[in-house]
Amino acid sequence: MSSTPGPKYKRLNIADAALLVVDLQVGLFQLVKDIEPRAYRNNILGFSAIGTYFGLPVVLTTSAETGPNGPLPKEITDAYPDAPYIKRPGEVDAWDNKDFRNAVQALGKKQLILAGITTDVCAAFLSLSLREAGYDVWVVAEACGTFDKPTADLANLRMLNAGVTITSLFGAACELMRDWRDAPGGVDVAQDWYSKWLPNYDMLVRSYRAVAPTD
Amino acid sequence: MSSTPGPKYKRLNIADAALLVVDLQVGLFQLVKDIEPRAYRNNILGFSAIGTYFGLPVVLTTSAETGPNGPLPKEITDAYPDAPYIKRPGEVDAWDNKDFRNAVQALGKKQLILAGITTDVCAAFLSLSLREAGYDVWVVAEACGTFDKPTADLANLRMLNAGVTITSLFGAACELMRDWRDAPGGVDVAQDWYSKWLPNYDMLVRSYRAVAPTD
Amino acid sequence: MSSTPGPKYKRLNIADAALLVVDLQVGLFQLVKDIEPRAYRNNILGFSAIGTYFGLPVVLTTSAETGPNGPLPKEITDAYPDAPYIKRPGEVDAWDNKDFRNAVQALGKKQLILAGITTDVCAAFLSLSLREAGYDVWVVAEACGTFDKPTADLANLRMLNAGVTITSLFGAACELMRDWRDAPGGVDVAQDWYSKWLPNYDMLVRSYRAVAPTD
Amino acid sequence: MSSTPGPKYKRLNIADAALLVVDLQVGLFQLVKDIEPRAYRNNILGFSAIGTYFGLPVVLTTSAETGPNGPLPKEITDAYPDAPYIKRPGEVDAWDNKDFRNAVQALGKKQLILAGITTDVCAAFLSLSLREAGYDVWVVAEACGTFDKPTADLANLRMLNAGVTITSLFGAACELMRDWRDAPGGVDVAQDWYSKWLPNYDMLVRSYRAVAPTD
Amino acid sequence: MSSTPGPKYKRLNIADAALLVVDLQVGLFQLVKDIEPRAYRNNILGFSAIGTYFGLPVVLTTSAETGPNGPLPKEITDAYPDAPYIKRPGEVDAWDNKDFRNAVQALGKKQLILAGITTDVCAAFLSLSLREAGYDVWVVAEACGTFDKPTADLANLRMLNAGVTITSLFGAACELMRDWRDAPGGVDVAQDWYSKWLPNYDMLVRSYRAVAPTD
Amino acid sequence: MSSTPGPKYKRLNIADAALLVVDLQVGLFQLVKDIEPRAYRNNILGFSAIGTYFGLPVVLTTSAETGPNGPLPKEITDAYPDAPYIKRPGEVDAWDNKDFRNAVQALGKKQLILAGITTDVCAAFLSLSLREAGYDVWVVAEACGTFDKPTADLANLRMLNAGVTITSLFGAACELMRDWRDAPGGVDVAQDWYSKWLPNYDMLVRSYRAVAPTD
Amino acid sequence: MSSTPGPKYKRLNIADAALLVVDLQVGLFQLVKDIEPRAYRNNILGFSAIGTYFGLPVVLTTSAETGPNGPLPKEITDAYPDAPYIKRPGEVDAWDNKDFRNAVQALGKKQLILAGITTDVCAAFLSLSLREAGYDVWVVAEACGTFDKPTADLANLRMLNAGVTITSLFGAACELMRDWRDAPGGVDVAQDWYSKWLPNYDMLVRSYRAVAPTD
Amino acid sequence: MSSTPGPKYKRLNIADAALLVVDLQVGLFQLVKDIEPRAYRNNILGFSAIGTYFGLPVVLTTSAETGPNGPLPKEITDAYPDAPYIKRPGEVDAWDNKDFRNAVQALGKKQLILAGITTDVCAAFLSLSLREAGYDVWVVAEACGTFDKPTADLANLRMLNAGVTITSLFGAACELMRDWRDAPGGVDVAQDWYSKWLPNYDMLVRSYRAVAPTD
Repeated sequence: MSSTPGPKYKRLNIADAALLVVDLQVGLFQLVKDIEPRAYRNNILGFSAIGTYFGLPVVLTTSAETGPNGPLPKEITDAYPDAPYIKRPGEVDAWDNKDFRNAVQALGKKQLILAGITTDVCAAFLSLSLREAGYDVWVVAEACGTFDKPTADLANLRMLNAGVTITSLFGAACELMRDWRDAPGGVDVAQDWYSKWLPNYDMLVRSYRAVAPTD
Repeated sequence: MSSTPGPKYKRLNIADAALLVVDLQVGLFQLVKDIEPRAYRNNILGFSAIGTYFGLPVVLTTSAETGPNGPLPKEITDAYPDAPYIKRPGEVDAWDNKDFRNAVQALGKKQLILAGITTDVCAAFLSLSLREAGYDVWVVAEACGTFDKPTADLANLRMLNAGVTITSLFGAACELMRDWRDAPGGVDVAQDWYSKWLPNYDMLVRSYRAVAPTD
Repeated sequence: MSSTPGPKYKRLNIADAALLVVDLQVGLFQLVKDIEPRAYRNNILGFSAIGTYFGLPVVLTTSAETGPNGPLPKEITDAYPDAPYIKRPGEVDAWDNKDFRNAVQALGKKQLILAGITTDVCAAFLSLSLREAGYDVWVVAEACGTFDKPTADLANLRMLNAGVTITSLFGAACELMRDWRDAPGGVDVAQDWYSKWLPNYDMLVRSYRAVAPTD
Repeated sequence: MSSTPGPKYKRLNIADAALLVVDLQVGLFQLVKDIEPRAYRNNILGFSAIGTYFGLPVVLTTSAETGPNGPLPKEITDAYPDAPYIKRPGEVDAWDNKDFRNAVQALGKKQLILAGITTDVCAAFLSLSLREAGYDVWVVAEACGTFDKPTADLANLRMLNAGVTITSLFGAACELMRDWRDAPGGVDVAQDWYSKWLPNYDMLVRSYRAVAPTD
Repeated sequence: MSSTPGPKYKRLNIADAALLVVDLQVGLFQLVKDIEPRAYRNNILGFSAIGTYFGLPVVLTTSAETGPNGPLPKEITDAYPDAPYIKRPGEVDAWDNKDFRNAVQALGKKQLILAGITTDVCAAFLSLSLREAGYDVWVVAEACGTFDKPTADLANLRMLNAGVTITSLFGAACELMRDWRDAPGGVDVAQDWYSKWLPNYDMLVRSYRAVAPTD
Repeated sequence: MSSTPGPKYKRLNIADAALLVVDLQVGLFQLVKDIEPRAYRNNILGFSAIGTYFGLPVVLTTSAETGPNGPLPKEITDAYPDAPYIKRPGEVDAWDNKDFRNAVQALGKKQLILAGITTDVCAAFLSLSLREAGYDVWVVAEACGTFDKPTADLANLRMLNAGVTITSLFGAACELMRDWRDAPGGVDVAQDWYSKWLPNYDMLVRSYRAVAPTD
Repeated sequence: MSSTPGPKYKRLNIADAALLVVDLQVGLFQLVKDIEPRAYRNNILGFSAIGTYFGLPVVLTTSAETGPNGPLPKEITDAYPDAPYIKRPGEVDAWDNKDFRNAVQALGKKQLILAGITTDVCAAFLSLSLREAGYDVWVVAEACGTFDKPTADLANLRMLNAGVTITSLFGAACELMRDWRDAPGGVDVAQDWYSKWLPNYDMLVRSYRAVAPTD
Repeated sequence: MSSTPGPKYKRLNIADAALLVVDLQVGLFQLVKDIEPRAYRNNILGFSAIGTYFGLPVVLTTSAETGPNGPLPKEITDAYPDAPYIKRPGEVDAWDNKDFRNAVQALGKKQLILAGITTDVCAAFLSLSLREAGYDVWVVAEACGTFDKPTADLANLRMLNAGVTITSLFGAACELMRDWRDAPGGVDVAQDWYSKWLPNYDMLVRSYRAVAPTD
C-alpha cells in the first residue's frame, strides 16, 4: 500500500550470526552495579547459552585473566571447548588483538552478537571497532554490566549512535528463532530454554502445563 | 516569518489511521514488570478502546494463543467482533504471517497505531517490519510492556531510530481528535472517555462538574 | 507443643466488622502523590466495595465537600444509599463530629476498617481517636494517600505505634473471607471480585479458565 | 461500645504548644540530600510560619552561625524579631546550652514542635533530650533534612522509639487547627495559608474558586 | 586549529527570542505526576518570569479554560497584562488556532521558548508544528509536566528528533544572559533572580553574602 | 562487665528448627511484584533448599492448587518426597487447616522458618497464628513476595510487632550454621551451597579459587 | 516544667565507649549492594577512623580472612597496630569466639560502637549477643552493608527491636564530640576531620574559608 | 569480511588529547544533586587526575570565583601549577572568553576531554561551542553534575546530538591507555590509579593481591 519503503529492518539470521563472549570474567563481575546480581549471573549464562542453543559459532575472549579480573565462569568455557579462546594480555579493546581479529574474521559471519563487562569499555570499544570494520553488531544489554546505571545508559547511547543494535536476551533469541515451529528441538524444548533464563515465562509455562489437556 | 521550513510534523489523522492489537494476551501480561499492573490493565484496555471511540479499523493478532500465552482479554475481542483476528501459529514478528500482512494491507491505511507484549519483541519486530514496508507507525508505549524498564527503554530507542513515533495513550487520542469540538459524541462524551482511562483527569472533571454552573 | 502462648492474633471477623469511608473525595484525590493514580482510583473503589461484598455496615463521611475538596465518587455513594453519610462542616478528625461518633457507635461493631485522604491527617487522626475509644482499627494502606511516600510511611508508623493494624486490600479481604469455600457467592464469584481489583490475579484466573478442563 | 479504652491519642493543642526552629541555617541547607531542594526550602519556611499563623511562642537557635553553617534565613528571623534567639557557640545538642534550656522552660509549654538540620543530629539529639526532660515532642519530618534517605529513616525510627511524634507540615497544622471553622482568620485565610506551602492544594483551591458560585 | 568546523551551536539570543506560555493551567497542573509538586509550581512560575526578566515578548494561551482545565495562575496573567492571550476554544495543538498563529508570527522572532502541560500533548504538538513552520524551539523541560516519567522522557525524545532543543530553566536563562556582567540589573539582581527559582543557588548566595567582605 | 543483661537473643538452632514452605505456587508467583523475578525464583528455591542442607524437617502446604494458583515448583516437591504435604482446599491461613496444624505439631519443633506468597496474607496470617500458638517464627523476607513494595514493608512490620523475626536467606542459613567449621559437608560444600543462591558470593569464591595456593 | 520525665536518652560518651571493627574485609566488600561503592569505601574508612580521632579503644576482628573473604583494608590495620585483632577461624557471630569476648570484656567499656559486613549477619548477630550480654550498642548503619536495601532495612529493624541504637557516621561522631569547642584538636581540626568523610560538609567549609575574614 | 566499512570509531589518543577542567568549583559543588556527594567529590578529583596520569596538557577555568561560586579544589590547582588558569569574570560559556579560547587553541590538540558544573550550562555550552569550532569533544559524565537527574539526562542528549562523546571516568582512562602493558608506570601503577577512583575495582585488586602467588 505504501509506495515509499522505509529504513531496512536489520534482522538477526542464524546463518549469518556468531556469538562473542567478551570479558564476562568472575572478577569483573564484581564491578557490575547496574543490574541485580542474582539477575546478572542468570543473564550472562543465558547470553552465553545462545551459541549452543542456536548452533552459532562462538569466540571467547578475556582480559588479563591471570590477574584480578579472573577467568570466565566454568559453565561458559565448558560449553564451548572447541571455540577460539583469546586470552588478551593487555589490549582493552579486543579488536586491537590480532588473534581475536583473526578468529572473528575466520568465522565469516556478518552479524555479531556480543556482551561484555564493562558496558562502557569492553563492550563499547569492541562494538565501535566492529562497526568501523563493517560488521552488524547486536549487543545484549542485560548481559553487559558496569559501575552504575547512568554509565550503562550513556554507553548504550554511544553504541546506538554508531549503528549498533542494543537488544535484550529474549529479543536476541526470538529474532534468531523467528518462528516457534522452527525452534531448535521444537516448541517444548524452546519453552524449556526460555524458561531457564526468564523466570516469569517459566512460571507461566508451569501453570499452563499443570492444567493443559494432554493429548 | 521563517523562510526555511523545518522537518514535517508527522501527525495522526483519523482518515488515515488503523489500530493493531498485537499479542496483548492474558498469559503474556504476566511477563510485564516495567509498568504497575493496575495501571497496565487499564492501559491495554484504553489503548484497545481507541478503535471504537474514533471509528478506526482494527486488526487483532495473537501468538500461539492456545498455549501458555493465552487468549486476548474478552473486553477486546468483544469490542471488535468483525475485525480480522489472526491467530499466528508460530511467527514471532506478525509481519512474517501472510494472513496478517494481507489483513493490514487490505485496510488501505498509511498510519498504524499499535501496542504489543513484549515491547522488545512483538511490538519492536512488527514496528520495524512495518517501517521497512513504508508505513508510518505510532507505538503507544504505556500499552506495551516487557521484563524490565531498561529493556523497554532500549526497545523504544530501537524503534525511534527506525522512525517510529512513540507516544502515550493521551497523546495518541489527542492527536487523532485534534479539536475538542470535533470529538466523537461531543465534549462531554470525550471527557468521559478520557476520564475512564486517565484517573487524575477523571477526578479533575468530577471536581469541575460538582461546582460548575449548569445552564 | 509450646507451653507459653504468644501475643493474640487480632483478626478481622465479618460479624464484628464495619467499614468507614473517610474523605475519599474527588478534590482531595489530587493531593495524593505516593500512589500511581491509575492504581489509586482502583484502590479506593476496591476498598469501598468491601462493604457490599462482605455485607458489612458502612459509614460515609466527608470534609467540607461543598468546597474544593469535592464530593465522594458517585460509585461509592451509589453503592451505599442507606448508609449514614456525615458531611462534616469543619472537623478534621471525624471523631470530633458528634454525628459521626453516633453513627459509628450505633453500628455496635468492635472492628473498624477504614481508609482516608490524607493518610497523615484524615486517616491517622481518626484512627488514633478510635484506638483511644477502644476500637480495633484496620487501615487499608493502599486506599489511603498523601503528599509523598515519606509522609505516608511516617503516618503508618504513627498508627502502628498506637496499635492500629495496617493492611492491604487483599489482606483485608482475605482476612474477612478466611476460607475460599465460605466466600460470598462461592469461589467463582470471589475470583471475579478479587480479579476486578487485582489485575495480576485477574490475568492468572483468565489464563487458568482458558485451559482448565470444564466439568 | 468498647469497654476497654486504648492508648491515649497525644494531640497538639494551640494553648499547650510552642515552636522550636533548630539550626535551619543557610550553610547547613547544603548538607540536605534526602529532600528535593525546591521542596525543602518551601518546607523549612512553611514549618517556621506555623508560629505566626497559630500564634505560638517560638524559640530560635543556631549552631556556630558565624562559621560555615551560616545564619538562619532572613524570612525566619524577620518573622520573629522578639523571639528568644540562642546562638550556640559549640553545643551540638541545643539542650546542652543553658540559655536554650532556660528559654524553652520559660515558655511553660508542654508540647514542642520542632525541625532541624540534620535530622540525625540536631533534630534527634534535642528531641531525645526533650523527651527525657518530660516534654511531648512533634518533629516535622519534611522540614528536617540530612545526608541521605536511609539516615533520615533511621533517625526518625530512633526518635519514634523514644516516644517522639513524627508528623508532616500538613499534619502538624491540621492537628493544631482541628476545625476549619476555627482556623485563624477563617476558612479563606486558612486555604490561602495551606496553599502557600502545599502547591497541589493550592491548585485545587484555584480551580474551585474559578468556577464556584459566589454569594 | 581544526580545519573542519562542526555542527552549528544553535544558541538563544535575547534579540531573537520570545516566550510562549502554553496551557500551564491550574486544573491541568493536577495531571502532572513526573515532577514533585512543590518543585513544579516553582518551575512554571520561574519559567514564566523569564519574559519579564529578559524583556522578551510573550504570548499566553490556554485550552478550554472555562472548563475543568481552569485558568492560568494569576501570577502569570498579572505579569503580562498586555501580552496576547489566546483562549483556544478546542484546538489541542495551539498552532491549529489562527489567532495564536497570528500572535506568534506578529512577534517576528525566530527563537521560541515554551513550556506546556502536558509535555506529550500541548508542548510536543506545538513544538513539532513550530519546527515544521521553520522556527527554532527551546522547550524548558522542568516547566512541562505529564502523567508519568516515561511519558515525559518519550515526549522529549520525540521533540529532540524534530530538532527541538530541550533545556532546563537555568540553562535557558544562562543562555539568554551569556555574561553575568550583562545580566539585566547587574550581577546582584541576577543572583536574586536565580535565587528565587533555584533554592540551592539561593542558599549558596546567602552563605556567601553572610561572610563576604563588603566594600 | 555489664551487670544487667539485656533482651535475650532469640537464635535459630538446627535441633529446634523446622521449615514450612507455604503457598510458593507457580501461579501465585505471578502476583509478586516487589522482587525482580530472576532473583525471586532463586530466592524461593534457595529458601526451600535450607531443609535439605541443614537436615531440617519440612512441611509443604498449598492453597487450592488445582485452580489458578497452581502447584509448587517441581524442584521443591522432588526435594521432599516424604514431607507432609497439605493441600488446603480453601483455608487462607494454613493454621486454620487441621491437617496442617497436626503436621506442624507432630514435628515437635519450637522454631519455625517459613516463607509464603503473598507476604501480607499467606505468610503474615500463618506467622501471627503461630506466634499466638507460642512458636518462635523466622520469616525469610526475600522468599516472600507480594503485590508491591509498600505492601511487603507493612506486612513485615505487622509480623515484627507480633515478635516474628524477619531475616534474609543468608541470615537464616548463617544463624543455623553458626560456625563455618561445623557446616554440613565442611567449608567447601558450604561455600558451594551459598554460591548457588548468592551470585556475588559465588563470584568471590570463584575468584579466590582461581588464584589460591592449593595444598 | 514537665513533672514526669520521659525515657532516658542513651548517649555516647567518650569515656565509656569503644569501637569494634567487624569483618569489613576486602572480599566481603563485594557483597555490598545497598550502598554506592564510592560512598561505601569512604564510610568504612571514616567509621574506622573514629577510634583514632576520639582516642577510643578498638577491637578488630575478621572472619576466615585467609579465604575468599580476604583481609581488612590496610588503612585500618595500620591505624591500630596495637589493637586486639581476632581472626576468627569459623564463628559467624564474633561473640561465639572466646578470644573476641575476652578482648571486648577487657576493655571495660559499656558503650560499643560497631559496623560489619553483612548488616544482617555479622553486624546483627554480634549486636544481638552484645545486647543480651548487657552492653549498650551503637551500629553505624552507613558503614554496614549487605545484599540489598530491604535486607539492610529489616536487619536494622531487628537490631532496633533489641534496643540497639542505629546511627550515622556524622551522628556517632557528633554524639561523642558533644561540643565543637571540645573537639580533639580544636574546631579547625574537627572541621577537617568531618570534611574528609562528608564531602558536602567539606565543600561548605572550603567555600567559607575562601571568603571568611581572617584574624 | 565485510565489504562496506561502517562509521569511524572516534577514539581518544594520548598524543591528540588535552584536559579541560571547567568550573568544578567548591560553591557550585552544592548545586549538584544528581550524583551522591561522596561519589561526586571522588569523580571530580579522579577526572582532574587524568591529566597528570597520562601526561596531558590541561587548561583550568572558573566562573566568577571570587563570588559565591568559590575557587577550584586545592587538589586540582596544586596538581597543575603551570597550567593556564582562566578566571572568567562573567562569561558563562568559557568559549566566549578570549583568553580561554587562546589557551585551548595554543594546545594544538584536536581531542578535548572535559567536565563542568553544571552539566546543562557550563559543560554543555562549552561543548557545543567546541564542536562548532571543529574539535572532537569527550565529556566525562560522572564528573559533571547538575540540579537533578532529568536535567543531566537532557543535557547529555543535547551534547550527543552535536556529536559530543559522553563517557565515564573508567571509559576515558581506558580509551587513553588502550593496553594495560602500555599504561604509564606499568600494570601495578595502573591498578593503583584505577583503584584510587573506583572502589570496587580497588577491593578486587586487594583481594587478588592477598592471595596471588608472588614471584
